[in-house]
Parts: sequence; structure tokens; C-alpha cells
Amino acid sequence: MKIIDCHGHAPAPDKLFAYKSLLIAHRGANGRGKCNIPDDDIRHIMEEKHFIFGPYSHLDHLNNLGTDVQLISPKPFQMMHSMRPTKIVRWFAEEYHNLIARECEMWPGRFAGIAVLPQYGGEPLDDAIAELERCVNELGFAGCLMNPDPYENTGEHPPPVGDRYWYPLYEKLCELDVPAHIHGTGSLSEREPFNLRFINEETTAVHGFVKSDVFKDFPDLKIVVSHGGGAIPYQVARFQSVSLRKKGSPTFIDGMRNLYYDTVLYSANSIEMLIKTVGADRCIFGSECPGQGASINPETGKTFDDVATYIRGFDWLSDEEKADIFENNARRVFKLDKV
Amino acid sequence: MKIIDCHGHAPAPDKLFAYKSLLIAHRGANGRGKCNIPDDDIRHIMEEKHFIFGPYSHLDHLNNLGTDVQLISPKPFQMMHSMRPTKIVRWFAEEYHNLIARECEMWPGRFAGIAVLPQYGGEPLDDAIAELERCVNELGFAGCLMNPDPYENTGEHPPPVGDRYWYPLYEKLCELDVPAHIHGTGSLSEREPFNLRFINEETTAVHGFVKSDVFKDFPDLKIVVSHGGGAIPYQVARFQSVSLRKKGSPTFIDGMRNLYYDTVLYSANSIEMLIKTVGADRCIFGSECPGQGASINPETGKTFDDVATYIRGFDWLSDEEKADIFENNARRVFKLDKV
Repeated sequence: MKIIDCHGHAPAPDKLFAYKSLLIAHRGANGRGKCNIPDDDIRHIMEEKHFIFGPYSHLDHLNNLGTDVQLISPKPFQMMHSMRPTKIVRWFAEEYHNLIARECEMWPGRFAGIAVLPQYGGEPLDDAIAELERCVNELGFAGCLMNPDPYENTGEHPPPVGDRYWYPLYEKLCELDVPAHIHGTGSLSEREPFNLRFINEETTAVHGFVKSDVFKDFPDLKIVVSHGGGAIPYQVARFQSVSLRKKGSPTFIDGMRNLYYDTVLYSANSIEMLIKTVGADRCIFGSECPGQGASINPETGKTFDDVATYIRGFDWLSDEEKADIFENNARRVFKLDKV
Repeated sequence: MKIIDCHGHAPAPDKLFAYKSLLIAHRGANGRGKCNIPDDDIRHIMEEKHFIFGPYSHLDHLNNLGTDVQLISPKPFQMMHSMRPTKIVRWFAEEYHNLIARECEMWPGRFAGIAVLPQYGGEPLDDAIAELERCVNELGFAGCLMNPDPYENTGEHPPPVGDRYWYPLYEKLCELDVPAHIHGTGSLSEREPFNLRFINEETTAVHGFVKSDVFKDFPDLKIVVSHGGGAIPYQVARFQSVSLRKKGSPTFIDGMRNLYYDTVLYSANSIEMLIKTVGADRCIFGSECPGQGASINPETGKTFDDVATYIRGFDWLSDEEKADIFENNARRVFKLDKV
């Protein structure tokens, strides 16, 4: 059995962010340009440069936790979906995706690419769909993230995930047979920084999908929700109770089971709550390593993001269910023929 | 031991909402007017009128669950904090509070009043503070709700709860020795209806308080968070991990323990997660009955909001801890000399 981490973010050399900085400065006036990153810079960022603290590179972290394969997307908080003109958002996404494609090639079988689509609040999804096609068909990517708030918390209300605004994207996802993984990008609110906004966006997205007709209209659509579904598994009885008022209709939890959830939660209790709420068939291993969970948990002596150890320890899960969570569900949902 | 439900909303006769409807229609042009509600209407709404479904009145619901005392505030989603001019928001809050004061008098020892302060995005808190004083000193209320987003999700960013904008309110709360119970009001976003927005606002508020200096500046301030703290107990390891990067500083969970949390969660697992995260000394019994949790849970045969039964069943809590959650913590935090 392989351990596939469906939720990782690709480390990127500083040159990529210098390119972004320039795009923001000239707002597209100087043209697209190109971000030339030497192979050595990529090797350095993946194998040598230490992540925030501790003497470990990105690959060291994966090796330490026994992660065989990681699905890597651009760091979402860098994607500046609310920046204008929209072409600089697109150019930056393209360069980041090109980098990820090279990372997948340089460490064959170790990574699969996930796109962060260029989305812009109030604009149609044409660029997002075009880049999704390019990433899947030309770069061999396994899926994409979908940002439910492309306004990035600037105050406009994006359409609910059940709104027909999103339908062209859902159609393309079905056609390409790849999933969208729900994940916010930036947040322009001081009181709700991106790391917190992600959680609230996931809460809102699960609620929105459950309340929508999306899975009636797209029975083959595959949606994965980050960080174990935001608040929803903890708050689920509240929504379940209200849904039971309509006799004979699917319950809230029935609706939740149309979605998949990653296990990017850094405690055994929370992961247990997730799996027992939605079922092992709806959970996909994720650790987002190295990231928020890279500190040592004084109670266990291991890093918080050693999610595999929590799951291995669940004696109420069968070996088959564990294999589903660690590998099989990811293979059913993402396009993973090369890893 | 008494069972004190710290989170209830006061049923109100239709006349109150007819008054609100008129205020919205004339926008204050016809003056304040008055909402004349006969005692019989109040008796009807409390003792006879059935709540949504099932043959039970508000008081029946409390009796069925064995709730001795309930703290009742206006229904927050009715409070129209984003409506203008601000005086109609204030007038409506005053009338609702006057009604609650009468309910407390008509069923002595059964209820205590909680204000929903008239707050307006972008405006100082003068009216909120004046109404808090009136409610506590003249109407004998036990505390108030605080709405962290008085813009009601219209897109403006309210100041974080740690911002000095809120300090005059915190000062007055300390002076009056009453708590603020964090609870959103309306939401003008289709994708994030008020019932869901409450949860996201609680998540944001807990995070904001933990990241702030509020409890350094107001060591006696008492803040209660609704619905078990939104997403935070479920997601806590994520934030705890990051907080451990700063050696020697208080951790995220240390910061959470400056706050209190009500138990308005409708499953035993979630309430267990809450208590084990923040400690029994930080949890206050709440059921919000009758409300979201009034359906029968097919797994237990009881209503979801029979929260007391979940807590009584925890063999890992001592009798003293249960008494703290059911009664003593509420008495320490709210002004409850009359119940």
C-alpha cells in the first residue's frame, strides 16, 4: 500500500515570487515575461532548503512521515485572485503550474500536480477552464483546487457553490474526470486572515453543496473539501436536526456524503469525528506536510501533521478502510495513473 | 442543583414584528411610536403557541427537558443591525428588551434577560453602551450578546475583536460586571445564511480574542462564545501547532481558556470535544431550546437539543464538574441574583 497525501503545496524558489512581485508592480504593462528557474533552484527548494524551522527540507518531511506520493498545488494564499488586471493572475498561475510540472518530472512517481485555477470575482470562468484543460491534458495534472470566494474576502458576495455560475467548471471537471478540491486563496480582511478564512470557506462550501442541486445535475462530479470540512463535522447535529424537519428528504449527512474530505486535521479526535460522520469511503488522506502542523506535539513527541499515525491507530477501522483512506479513495477521485 | 440554560431566545408576539415592519417601511419618518403588547399575547406566545412543529409551547419545551432557568435574548437574526437609519435599530431593540423584561416578571425565577445591543457597522458603540446600561440597571438583565459583525455580512470588514474600537464596550461590561455572549445577527449573503454565519463568526471571534491583548487589558472581562466556539475545538490542533512555534508564549489553547463556551452543540461527541479542549470550568450549559435542535434524533429517540442528557451521561466528568456546567459557571459569569 502506498500512502498518498492528497493535500500538499509545492515549494517554489524565490524567483517565482520575484516574478509575481514584478507583475504586481507593472500590472501587466510590461507584458507577460517569463520566470526562468534553473533546475538547481528547484532541487535546492525541494531537497535542501529547510521549512520554517527544524533541519528538514520538503522531501525530508515527506520521508520522515513515510509519505510515498504527494499531490502538490500552488500555495493558495499566494494566488492573488482579487488582483487586477486578471491577466497577471493568470500568468502567475501558469508559471507556478509549469514549475510544478517540472517538480513532478524531476522526482518521478513522487508527486502529482494540482492546479489552482485563475479565478476572478465577477468574471466568467473561461480562464479557469482553459488552464484546467492545459494542466490536465498537457501537464498531466491530477485535479485542481476550486476557490469558492475569488473576491478573496474583499466584501462582494460570490455566488453560492450551487449557483449556475459554477456549472461550466463542473461540466469541464466531469468531462476531464478530475476533481475540484475546495480551498480558499487569499483574504483581505485583517480579522479573518487566510489561514482562518480557509476554514470558514470550507464550512460555507459544504453547507452550500448540501443545500444545492449540484449532485443531481452532475452525478459524476467529484468534490473534495479541505481540512476535514471546516466546522461542519463538529456542528453537524445542528444542521442534521433541521434537515429532519422535511420528512422523506435526504438528510444533511446524506448530502455531506456526496463530497469527499481530506484528513488535514492535526488531532486523532478530530479525524475520528470526521470519519465517523461521513464514512471511511469519503475520506482521503492528507497532511499538508510541511505546513501548519510541522510543530512537535508535546503530548505525542511527534509532529502534529503525522496524520498517518493517528489513522493507523484507529482499531475501529478495518485494514481495508485504512487502505481506502491512505490510497484507494485518492486513486478513485484524482487522476493518478503516473504515481 | 438548578439547570440554567444560558442560551435561549425570547419568543415574541407577532405585534413586535409588525412594529419592526413598520419601522423598516417608514425608516423612522413617523417617529418612534410604541409597541403595545397585551399580557395575554405574551402568555399565548410562551404557554400556548407551538414552536414550528410538535404540540409544544416554549415553556413546554423547557419543562420537557427539565430546564429550570433560561437566559433569553432577542432572536438575533431579527435585529437588523445593518438597517438604516440607526435609530430604527435602536427602537426595535428597546421594544424587544422591554418585552423580555415583562416575560421575566410574568414567570418569576424562570427567565433572565440578555440584551442584543443596538450596534451599527462603522459607528461608535454609544447606543450599544447606553442600552446595555439601561438593560442591566433598569431592567435587571444578566448580560448581553455582542455581534462581531454589525455590518451583517454586507461586505465591509468590521474591526477585529481585539481592536480598540470595542474597548469602550469592554470597559462598560467590566464596570457592570456582566458578560458579552458572542453571537452574530443577520447575514445579507445568500451563500452564508444567518444560521451558518453564526458559526463562522464564532470561529473568527475565538481566533481574534486569542490573537489579541484584550484579556491583558481587561483581566476581568467575561466573554462567552455561542455554539461551542464555531469550528475551533475541531480545528484546534492546527492553531495549537502554529502557536507552539513561539517558545515560551501562551499556546492557542491557553488563549482559548480566557473565554467561556456554551454547550449549544447537538451531539454528545461534539460536547465531549468542547469540554476536553477548554475544560469543564470554561463551559456553560446551553441548549437554545426550542430552536435548531428541536427535531427528534432517530438514534436516541429524544430531541437533539436534550443537551443535559448528553452531559449527565459523561462518566469522565465528576458531579462537581457537571454542577459547574449546569449551574455554577453561569452564576459566576452572568448576573443571576434573581433566579
